[in-house]
Amino acid sequence: MKLFRPEEECGVFGIYGHPEAANLTYLGLYALQHRGQESCGIVSSDGTGLHAHKRMGLVADVFGNQKVFEKLPGKAAIGHVRYSTAGASVEKNVQPIMVDYSRGSIAVAHNGNLVNANLLKAELEAYGSIFQTTMDTEIIIHLLAISRTHSLVERIGDALNRVKGAYCLLFLTESRMIAVRDPHGFRPLCLGKLGDGWVVASESCALDLIEAEFVREVEPGEMLIFTKDGQMQSLFPFKKIEPTPCIFEFVYFARPDSNIFGKNVYQVRKELGRQLAREYKVDADVVIAVPDSGVPAAMGYAEEAGIPFELGLIRNHYVGRTFIEPAQSIRHFGVKIKLNPVRELLEGKRVVVIDDSIVRGTTSRKIVKMVRNAGAKEVHMRISSPPTSYPCFYGIDTPNRKELISSSHTLDEIRRYITADTLGYLSEEGLVKATGLKHSFCTACFTGEYPINFPMPSQIPQMGLFSKDEEYIEQ
Amino acid sequence: MKLFRPEEECGVFGIYGHPEAANLTYLGLYALQHRGQESCGIVSSDGTGLHAHKRMGLVADVFGNQKVFEKLPGKAAIGHVRYSTAGASVEKNVQPIMVDYSRGSIAVAHNGNLVNANLLKAELEAYGSIFQTTMDTEIIIHLLAISRTHSLVERIGDALNRVKGAYCLLFLTESRMIAVRDPHGFRPLCLGKLGDGWVVASESCALDLIEAEFVREVEPGEMLIFTKDGQMQSLFPFKKIEPTPCIFEFVYFARPDSNIFGKNVYQVRKELGRQLAREYKVDADVVIAVPDSGVPAAMGYAEEAGIPFELGLIRNHYVGRTFIEPAQSIRHFGVKIKLNPVRELLEGKRVVVIDDSIVRGTTSRKIVKMVRNAGAKEVHMRISSPPTSYPCFYGIDTPNRKELISSSHTLDEIRRYITADTLGYLSEEGLVKATGLKHSFCTACFTGEYPINFPMPSQIPQMGLFSKDEEYIEQ
Amino acid sequence: MKLFRPEEECGVFGIYGHPEAANLTYLGLYALQHRGQESCGIVSSDGTGLHAHKRMGLVADVFGNQKVFEKLPGKAAIGHVRYSTAGASVEKNVQPIMVDYSRGSIAVAHNGNLVNANLLKAELEAYGSIFQTTMDTEIIIHLLAISRTHSLVERIGDALNRVKGAYCLLFLTESRMIAVRDPHGFRPLCLGKLGDGWVVASESCALDLIEAEFVREVEPGEMLIFTKDGQMQSLFPFKKIEPTPCIFEFVYFARPDSNIFGKNVYQVRKELGRQLAREYKVDADVVIAVPDSGVPAAMGYAEEAGIPFELGLIRNHYVGRTFIEPAQSIRHFGVKIKLNPVRELLEGKRVVVIDDSIVRGTTSRKIVKMVRNAGAKEVHMRISSPPTSYPCFYGIDTPNRKELISSSHTLDEIRRYITADTLGYLSEEGLVKATGLKHSFCTACFTGEYPINFPMPSQIPQMGLFSKDEEYIEQ
Amino acid sequence: MKLFRPEEECGVFGIYGHPEAANLTYLGLYALQHRGQESCGIVSSDGTGLHAHKRMGLVADVFGNQKVFEKLPGKAAIGHVRYSTAGASVEKNVQPIMVDYSRGSIAVAHNGNLVNANLLKAELEAYGSIFQTTMDTEIIIHLLAISRTHSLVERIGDALNRVKGAYCLLFLTESRMIAVRDPHGFRPLCLGKLGDGWVVASESCALDLIEAEFVREVEPGEMLIFTKDGQMQSLFPFKKIEPTPCIFEFVYFARPDSNIFGKNVYQVRKELGRQLAREYKVDADVVIAVPDSGVPAAMGYAEEAGIPFELGLIRNHYVGRTFIEPAQSIRHFGVKIKLNPVRELLEGKRVVVIDDSIVRGTTSRKIVKMVRNAGAKEVHMRISSPPTSYPCFYGIDTPNRKELISSSHTLDEIRRYITADTLGYLSEEGLVKATGLKHSFCTACFTGEYPINFPMPSQIPQMGLFSKDEEYIEQ
Repeated sequence: MKLFRPEEECGVFGIYGHPEAANLTYLGLYALQHRGQESCGIVSSDGTGLHAHKRMGLVADVFGNQKVFEKLPGKAAIGHVRYSTAGASVEKNVQPIMVDYSRGSIAVAHNGNLVNANLLKAELEAYGSIFQTTMDTEIIIHLLAISRTHSLVERIGDALNRVKGAYCLLFLTESRMIAVRDPHGFRPLCLGKLGDGWVVASESCALDLIEAEFVREVEPGEMLIFTKDGQMQSLFPFKKIEPTPCIFEFVYFARPDSNIFGKNVYQVRKELGRQLAREYKVDADVVIAVPDSGVPAAMGYAEEAGIPFELGLIRNHYVGRTFIEPAQSIRHFGVKIKLNPVRELLEGKRVVVIDDSIVRGTTSRKIVKMVRNAGAKEVHMRISSPPTSYPCFYGIDTPNRKELISSSHTLDEIRRYITADTLGYLSEEGLVKATGLKHSFCTACFTGEYPINFPMPSQIPQMGLFSKDEEYIEQ
Repeated sequence: MKLFRPEEECGVFGIYGHPEAANLTYLGLYALQHRGQESCGIVSSDGTGLHAHKRMGLVADVFGNQKVFEKLPGKAAIGHVRYSTAGASVEKNVQPIMVDYSRGSIAVAHNGNLVNANLLKAELEAYGSIFQTTMDTEIIIHLLAISRTHSLVERIGDALNRVKGAYCLLFLTESRMIAVRDPHGFRPLCLGKLGDGWVVASESCALDLIEAEFVREVEPGEMLIFTKDGQMQSLFPFKKIEPTPCIFEFVYFARPDSNIFGKNVYQVRKELGRQLAREYKVDADVVIAVPDSGVPAAMGYAEEAGIPFELGLIRNHYVGRTFIEPAQSIRHFGVKIKLNPVRELLEGKRVVVIDDSIVRGTTSRKIVKMVRNAGAKEVHMRISSPPTSYPCFYGIDTPNRKELISSSHTLDEIRRYITADTLGYLSEEGLVKATGLKHSFCTACFTGEYPINFPMPSQIPQMGLFSKDEEYIEQ
Repeated sequence: MKLFRPEEECGVFGIYGHPEAANLTYLGLYALQHRGQESCGIVSSDGTGLHAHKRMGLVADVFGNQKVFEKLPGKAAIGHVRYSTAGASVEKNVQPIMVDYSRGSIAVAHNGNLVNANLLKAELEAYGSIFQTTMDTEIIIHLLAISRTHSLVERIGDALNRVKGAYCLLFLTESRMIAVRDPHGFRPLCLGKLGDGWVVASESCALDLIEAEFVREVEPGEMLIFTKDGQMQSLFPFKKIEPTPCIFEFVYFARPDSNIFGKNVYQVRKELGRQLAREYKVDADVVIAVPDSGVPAAMGYAEEAGIPFELGLIRNHYVGRTFIEPAQSIRHFGVKIKLNPVRELLEGKRVVVIDDSIVRGTTSRKIVKMVRNAGAKEVHMRISSPPTSYPCFYGIDTPNRKELISSSHTLDEIRRYITADTLGYLSEEGLVKATGLKHSFCTACFTGEYPINFPMPSQIPQMGLFSKDEEYIEQ
Repeated sequence: MKLFRPEEECGVFGIYGHPEAANLTYLGLYALQHRGQESCGIVSSDGTGLHAHKRMGLVADVFGNQKVFEKLPGKAAIGHVRYSTAGASVEKNVQPIMVDYSRGSIAVAHNGNLVNANLLKAELEAYGSIFQTTMDTEIIIHLLAISRTHSLVERIGDALNRVKGAYCLLFLTESRMIAVRDPHGFRPLCLGKLGDGWVVASESCALDLIEAEFVREVEPGEMLIFTKDGQMQSLFPFKKIEPTPCIFEFVYFARPDSNIFGKNVYQVRKELGRQLAREYKVDADVVIAVPDSGVPAAMGYAEEAGIPFELGLIRNHYVGRTFIEPAQSIRHFGVKIKLNPVRELLEGKRVVVIDDSIVRGTTSRKIVKMVRNAGAKEVHMRISSPPTSYPCFYGIDTPNRKELISSSHTLDEIRRYITADTLGYLSEEGLVKATGLKHSFCTACFTGEYPINFPMPSQIPQMGLFSKDEEYIEQ
């Protein structure tokens, strides 16, 4: 028995009621590529059947042939991009999943992660279900297929009331598209309109690209049903709870040009930088960023601190995913292959380096050394979020706890490890304050306060069989 | 809802208890390539988990890299080759299928075709099952997963007692391999021994290649269970019935160097030719074959008739599956691309042409014309089997009835269509007699007498949804 | 007869005397990828023979397999990256070229463009030469092969004294590497040291990546000969002339972290922005850049003008080269696929947009519209170089003159076409001044003053045969 | 300096004056695939330019896309197939070669081998030529380019009068096609007519496939010039000598359905078998062939000897070129992967095995053992040609002398090595007699009497540099 692979760091896109549904889904996935680069897929419906194309690879490669779209007819389509994990051949896991069940065919695209996946799987198998993938998404379809309720909407509601976790889901049948955001609203999901068609996407940047109008965000716990008459129905099939959107989407994950949870990401990031400057000012000559994600915060820091901002580290955008490390004797290029310092800007200077987070510390250590080798007199590392001490169980791929440097080291130990002169992290209060939003957030990766409890190891059957890299985390 | 694709014209191979299990399975599939060229796959077990590699393509291409075998560790493996059907992207259908169910992981390879697949699917879906492939093999696994019996062996027996049809099945779990041949014994399956390991294969030629010793054929209705202690257990979990092996395996499908159903295929084919000569002698100068399958029968015919046998048609073995028909204006090369007559052997001669069967008649027509264009004075077509008038439902891919020329045309109409001077088919009695075997055969493709009844169209739900090429045959 | 394809926008890298020569060349090309993304190649020497690997594609893809390096043994290697042109299959043109001639084998990598290629080709063919590529590099090798001088160094000098144009050349034989920069010094070329080995590269960023020490630039007209004893010899085989390095390398082409012609590119670009602000100030609320190349100039402009700089346009770095335009009905995504505005930063604002150049005007027009659609009240376009009115004949791929909008339109016509409120180009004097360098530059693309004359059409044989897209430019 | 790779075992095809020239060339190459499976290419002319498509791979794969033909317009085309040699990446050597020279563009396809290639190359390089391939074909083009004569026809004649060796050549320019067969006529070349168009092909089976009429063979020493008015001109530009066609084409190389040198190959092969029976009769129960090439001779032998012929060895036609030998522990499958004996035919029998030649002896040894393991009481090996003791220098890929078992072993030593009970080779006289032809043949591989002298090692410059596998043979 295997534990499930969470659908870490994914993006979903769906469109209903537009003659170029598959083509627009392709563009939408393109805009969401930063949410997942391992694989992607589109399923379309032409009213009488579902049609799929999905593969390992980037959107531009998997759909890099106009002929593909001839096989994806119809006015409705859903698509999915998925993050690159180390796992070898996982073609069977590429989404959307498409199956036959008693009421016909259905396809599902899923962004998120269920925390009770293994308990549910054990139950379902005891009941006679067979599993062909290692994705928790398959559990949702099994639950839906065995539901004793009648309509698809009821079945979905029934199924989702049994799962716990984070999810944005898009369902497509021959005649309908259904979008659901979990009651905690961990991941973003927004609604748009393009002509007579409806669009649902993980981030607003996907609406921008296809020039769809932003209507509103899908509410936590909301289910939207799109039907042939062009109508959209909104239901709330779950018990109402306090939403806890993921604050890390602001820190790192979402695209800066997107608006999520009611705010523009770029502006929030810049404010994170300003707040960081207020909390950890330092006397310095230049502020630089670890590109690309650290740039807005660095600009905010520089502005607030009154220190010039420069592009002191240049990123090579051709790096790609296929980079082969050179021969043994000249290995360990690591971050050098992506970043090169501009010596003229750093030589003899006191440099503030802004990054969004420190995970294992190894990259930060290389960057500090790189900046110092380029002549910096002092290197002050500033992080635009609090220490990441706990893994995420709601859909972002973080290493397990023992690999997170801040879970077991003091601030000063980290500083010494990364060889910085000073080190400052944004406070949790500062982080929340900088968003400018009143509502609660999931800050579990910083605080360990998980909004959803998850099963204790003792509750999971056959624990001994778990392979190491799928081990359930003990709190 | 879709009807199932029978696992037409496949080959299976399994080995248990040999340190080079995956490698030997590769060689075994190689020897069975003639049974299926569309796709192939191997699943191995190393005692703690199952490992798979499967793809569209020929065995030599899919496994054309030694690295593949590093990912297929263990001392047990099963493999599958599958026939090329027109269907587009059917990667999800490549066998063996591998799933998780309540008792762990299991992989299945299947050669055959279930006749009650659609009824079972409808039932299973009503029960809550979801289907991810369009292969009837998936039904067997669902039945096994929902069985209320305890042991795997019981579950398999339980599941197979519910299906009707033709099947040779290989199951692989982490610890065991199980082989089953259906009670009718439609398809061949044989047992061999290699060192301490056991081997099961569709045809004996696969044993020959790996230098395994031929032990015996697996009996119709027999289940063999191979376990870690090197033991093999034989069970007969089905009600005993009169076996009806497929006589067409002798006529065309099996490799001439294989022994099946107790006889050597080459020798049976030669005897088919001799019998044909006895039934339809003709005064002629030369006997030629449609290569390669017609050669042994032609040699037998020539011998019996006392007419010289010559290689009057030369086959281009580089044709391959990717041949692109040239431009419109020079199209219709058809059989010419594969065969070329040797004019010197045919010019001015009365020629007997031996083929194993006539399906649509179009190829025979082209061959007769080709031979006549090469100078033949007379062309006498002789077929080493009776007229093929009925489709096969037990695992061989035949066109539907209306495309079979002999289902709606008289002998003389066919003769005129193919433009032969005379035409003779081997009689059904002659065919059976030539095998030299006493037992019953399935001769349904010649006689329409199907050993297993199958559901009437009225019994199949939602008939209206069937797409044309999956239409159920009306008797 | 075909005219030659200039080796537009290429990068070269060579290393001599290091045990990991091919591996380091791979890394060097990686750092130079921005200079050419169409194809790449490496030739290595192990002292007894030359070994090559070259293909269409990005460096990371062509060399994305450690095995490749096993076929590139030796302590010396040269490599080449080449720009993507529209041309179909041009695999035969991938560099370095490798040939046999009377003295053995030689490989050549070339960045630049010869202006008398067609005259020389006609001459060489009359002499009996045959041409297998359409690269002017092949001409250089023919000239070298027919030279009546004795040593390789003399032959190279002899050959290069017959060609006119821009070139940085790396030659590799079994025993030596030779680097040459043309007397005008159009393209950059620098010299480095890594352990006992010598390195030559188009830009210093390639030295940085492999952690080689920057020694100095290769001088215009200089030839460097590297030999087995670890010695480097410097020769000046050409008549001394006033060098005219390409100023466009500063404006757009080189990487910002490189130092060329004695200056850091990022700092020059920032100064271009400051100078632009001095020349074309405007009352505005925010300065944004067309990323990535426009960012440093925008930062300089913002600083000088005292207007805040923001990342108002976000670039999607996954665009890649294989982007397929979607269906007809939703076409014309153009620049949208690459850039998305951040509405929150632009709405209601007077926006200054900084770009490095305007070529056809179509992209600028789309960007101005995009910024305005995002709510900008005013859009002021500022270009950090003078109007590009003349094509380059020295190695940068520019459209021909009639496609360059500024060659035939006034400033105000361009402004109206791109729909900007105001438009300002940096002056030629400002451009040169901003570099902070005293020496002459080639500014031909702005001024039409070409440092090297080139043959009049009348001098080129068989003019009538020239295909349109290879047409010789009329002055 | 490298020695040249002879164009071993190739096939050429050309067509002039047909609107589907490239398509028909594709079909022609398809029919000639047995003459070379490594690579193939087509160059077409549309009257204003040449167009090429060529790659490593089989004809069906390289041209497996109808789009390829859109890039090969025009009414004239030449094509080439080439044998698979071990050499790694030799894409640059794929034919036809296409170059520019003083009179325009020209493409060349070549079947054969020049014996003075290295001397000519040394001369040409001294003259200033550069070489980009390692094919001797390139030498011919250089000679043609430097010729001081005026017309193309004169240049070709001039060039060919300087080369020595075997060649069938097809030249294509924008306006003409020229075919040349060397004065010895080593390789076959035939002329056909299809509508108004002319066809030239290595073997007549290529004419058959496209339904072209066989006109006649191209004469040894003949040059055919095809021009736009539909005319064909025949010239004999060489000194007349006694032709010596390659007798091995009959023994093994040509397709049995082809007619070459005035005879049908199949019939000659059968007669070789009959003659062999006359020379080396044996008392036996069954005659079998090593398929496919040994079959006709085996049938002739059986007929003459009055012993039944059976298909005792079955060939697996899916073997292909990509077969990966399995793991170390189960290696050495060798011939087993291709051939499987039919035990029922061999058990307890005295078996005559017919093959066309013995090269190293290793394959024969495996076959004899295989037949014996299948139960044969006696194994009598008969070879339908004399012992192959000398390498071929005229276009067939044979191992060098020391690898040829018969060059250094007596008949009895060979018999013992291959473990046969008796061994008999056809006599040289018997071989020639069996062809039924009066003219001389090249029988150098059997006799060592080479029709063309070739340069002694001392005449070849820089002998020390020759790499081992290109070593010049010492007589």
